[in-house]
Amino acid sequence: MKSPDKHRKIIRAATKVFAKKGFFNARISDIAKEAKVADGTIYLYFNNKFDILLSVFEQEIGKLIDQVNLLLEKEENPKVKLEIFITNHLEEMKKNRYLAEVIHIELRQTSKLIREYRKNTFNEYLAIIAAIIEQGQEAGVFQKEIKADIAKQIIFGALDEISRCWHIGNDCPYTTEEVRLQIISLFQAGLLTPSA
Amino acid sequence: MKSPDKHRKIIRAATKVFAKKGFFNARISDIAKEAKVADGTIYLYFNNKFDILLSVFEQEIGKLIDQVNLLLEKEENPKVKLEIFITNHLEEMKKNRYLAEVIHIELRQTSKLIREYRKNTFNEYLAIIAAIIEQGQEAGVFQKEIKADIAKQIIFGALDEISRCWHIGNDCPYTTEEVRLQIISLFQAGLLTPSA
Repeated sequence: MKSPDKHRKIIRAATKVFAKKGFFNARISDIAKEAKVADGTIYLYFNNKFDILLSVFEQEIGKLIDQVNLLLEKEENPKVKLEIFITNHLEEMKKNRYLAEVIHIELRQTSKLIREYRKNTFNEYLAIIAAIIEQGQEAGVFQKEIKADIAKQIIFGALDEISRCWHIGNDCPYTTEEVRLQIISLFQAGLLTPSA
Repeated sequence: MKSPDKHRKIIRAATKVFAKKGFFNARISDIAKEAKVADGTIYLYFNNKFDILLSVFEQEIGKLIDQVNLLLEKEENPKVKLEIFITNHLEEMKKNRYLAEVIHIELRQTSKLIREYRKNTFNEYLAIIAAIIEQGQEAGVFQKEIKADIAKQIIFGALDEISRCWHIGNDCPYTTEEVRLQIISLFQAGLLTPSA
């Protein structure tokens, strides 16, 4: 009998194993051990390791999308919306270091499956940033010259790189609050002083 | 007999093979074939695949560092210096898609060797951004509140993510010039309009 509970448990275990060993070195038996299920049980739910990795993304990024959309729903101001997106991403990556590491490393895999995933579902997450920027441009709050589709990648790239700080084994000298304020200030006001 | 020429040739071939197959799937024999040398020749120069990957970084990032330092030498204005760094990185990544892909994917590997490399030599490259920002802060051109050590990662993260655009097999809708202007504008002036 399959159960959604066990499915989630395996995905959580897989996230941890992928983060610690890397996708290529991780074995199905490592994931089974971490999830405290028999090796064969894994194959009731997944076809292979790639299938598990894709499910990690589907489930965890799906959660991120739902969560940030819920937070954004209550807010009208695009400036504050961008701050909410940035804050939520950083807090979630700090809270879930294993996921941060899997996003940071395995989401970049060259396999066709991962490339396709990134182009489709993952892009839903980045599209939230683009929508906020476009809304801000219509409201006259954000510069019209900025292309939302390029800016969403720039902002995600920055968030992703800075989240490495909290990977397992890294000694991060910065608090989330510090990083959060720096990213917000840099993307909203830029580097230049008013007199420059 | 070892020759520096053959060493470079193997590294160039390895960059291409790593980009196309991924580090874990690439075999020494693939690299030998691409470099048009015998498998055994590779072992005259390198101990193993990790050794080759580290040499790719040492050689190619070393070149990037020398090249950008040469360009920066002639310039005094920190605002222009930042533009030079950004422009040079984007142009080099577009010119050398294989290197872009290896930096984007393999530099994130969890192996201890790659982590150590990233902490040391690679950090030399990012330190150039931090030095430009600090110089700009002293000159009153850049905001003093920005922490150069955080900003260097934010800017590199943005450049790295946007460089995916030019990976093999991606259909990039943007020119280098377009991306360059967007990144410079975003990091210098920020998203907010003057009235916001």
